[in-house]
Amino acid sequence: MSVEIYGKNSCQEIIDVKKEIIHAYLMENTNSDFLHLLQRRNVNITILNKYDFKKRFNGNHQGIVFEIEDYRIYQLDEVMTKIDLKNNPLFIMLDGITDVHNFGAIIRTCEAAGVEGIIIPKNRSVRISGVVAKTSSGAIEHIKIIEVVNLRNTLNKLKDIGFWTVGTSLDAKMDYSEIFVDRPLCVIIGSEGKGISRIIKESVDFNVKINMAGKTNSLNTSVSTGIIVFDILRKKQNK
Amino acid sequence: MSVEIYGKNSCQEIIDVKKEIIHAYLMENTNSDFLHLLQRRNVNITILNKYDFKKRFNGNHQGIVFEIEDYRIYQLDEVMTKIDLKNNPLFIMLDGITDVHNFGAIIRTCEAAGVEGIIIPKNRSVRISGVVAKTSSGAIEHIKIIEVVNLRNTLNKLKDIGFWTVGTSLDAKMDYSEIFVDRPLCVIIGSEGKGISRIIKESVDFNVKINMAGKTNSLNTSVSTGIIVFDILRKKQNK
Repeated sequence: MSVEIYGKNSCQEIIDVKKEIIHAYLMENTNSDFLHLLQRRNVNITILNKYDFKKRFNGNHQGIVFEIEDYRIYQLDEVMTKIDLKNNPLFIMLDGITDVHNFGAIIRTCEAAGVEGIIIPKNRSVRISGVVAKTSSGAIEHIKIIEVVNLRNTLNKLKDIGFWTVGTSLDAKMDYSEIFVDRPLCVIIGSEGKGISRIIKESVDFNVKINMAGKTNSLNTSVSTGIIVFDILRKKQNK
Repeated sequence: MSVEIYGKNSCQEIIDVKKEIIHAYLMENTNSDFLHLLQRRNVNITILNKYDFKKRFNGNHQGIVFEIEDYRIYQLDEVMTKIDLKNNPLFIMLDGITDVHNFGAIIRTCEAAGVEGIIIPKNRSVRISGVVAKTSSGAIEHIKIIEVVNLRNTLNKLKDIGFWTVGTSLDAKMDYSEIFVDRPLCVIIGSEGKGISRIIKESVDFNVKINMAGKTNSLNTSVSTGIIVFDILRKKQNK
C-alpha cells in the first residue's frame, strides 16, 4: 500500500532520509528546487496545472505531494528484542487518541524528546496518513510506531520485561515531576476528553497528573505529552 | 464591537463566568440543555434549522453560537499598577505569532499554568476572534491579554519595573530549566518558523533554548510554551 505525503517540510524529510518516492506530483510554476532534485534522482514526476492539482489533491499541499510506500508499522516483539533496557528507554502508549492532527503533533513532540517508540492499539487506532506525517513535520521518519492488539496485555508484557508503566490521570495523587527516570518507562497518554480508560488506569504501576494553577483544568494532548516527556528528558540530562 | 463564540465548551465558559450574551443562536433539535439555561436567564435566542444555521455560521460550531461583547484588551500600565511584584508574576510576550489556532492554544496553556497575562503587539497581532476563544477552550475568560505598541519598549519598561526578561531561541546557550523563578518574569515566545526577532533577542536579559534529543529540531509553539511555563510552575511549587 502507498500513502500520499503533502507539503514541503514532509516531502523534504522524505528526501533527507532517502525514502523511496514512488511518484512525485508538483503544481506548475512551484517548488522548482524540488523539481531539480527529483530529476537528479530519477523520480517519476507529474506536473499538473493549478486547477488539476487542486482537483486531484485536497488540503494543505503547498503544491507538492509525494506518493511513497506506506509507513512501516512495528510489532512489539521485534522492537523489544532489539532494545537495550540498560539505556532506560522511554515509550509512549496512546489510549483513545483518534484525531490525526493530535497524533501527528504527539509524534513530533515525542521524537524531539528522544522517545523510543509510540504504542497504539490496532483496531481503534488512527491510520498513519499524509495528515499525520505532515503534522509530525517529518518526525514520523525517525520514531517507531508499534501497533498492538491489546493495550492491557501489552502493559503486562512490558512489566514482565522490566518496564515501569505510568498512567496519566487528572485525579492521580503523584505529580508528573515525580516520575523516576533511571528505569525503562512506558507512559500512557489518554485522549483530551476522556483520559485513559479505567482498565489501563488500574493496570499501571502508578498514575501521575500535571498540577495546574489556573481555571483551565485540561491541556491539549500534545501539550501535556510535551510537558511530561520533556521533564523526563530534563531529568535524564541531570538538569 | 461584538464577537461570535462557537461551540459548546466556549459557550459553556461564557455562561460560567456570567459574561453578557447579546444573542444566542441554536441549531434546531440540538443543545436543549443550553436552551433551558438561556431561557431561564432571559437571553435573546434564535433557533435556526440545520440548513439556515450552516448557511449563517461556518466552521466547527456544534450547533451553538453566542454573540458577546468583544473581549477586553488591557493596557500595560493598568495591569502593572495592580500587579504585586512580590508574588513573582509571570508574563508571556508573543513575538510574531499570527496563527489564530496557535494563539488560542497558547492562551489555554498559559492560563492553566497560572500565567498572569499575555502581551501581544498591537499592529501585527491576531485579533481575538471566535476561533481564538474556541481554541483556548474558554481560558481567554481568565487571562489578561495586553496589547502594546512596541515590544522592545515594553521590555525596557518591564525591566525598569523589576522584571527579568527571557527570550527563547534555538541557538541560546542556557537551557529553559535554568530559568530562576524567584523574580518577576517575562518570557518571550517567537513564531515556529522564525523564532523571536533579532532586536528582541538582543534586548532581553538572557535567552534560553529547549534541549532536544531527537532529529526533530523544533516544536509546535504551544508545546514549547507549555514545556517552559509548566517547568516554571513546577519550580514555584518546589518540585
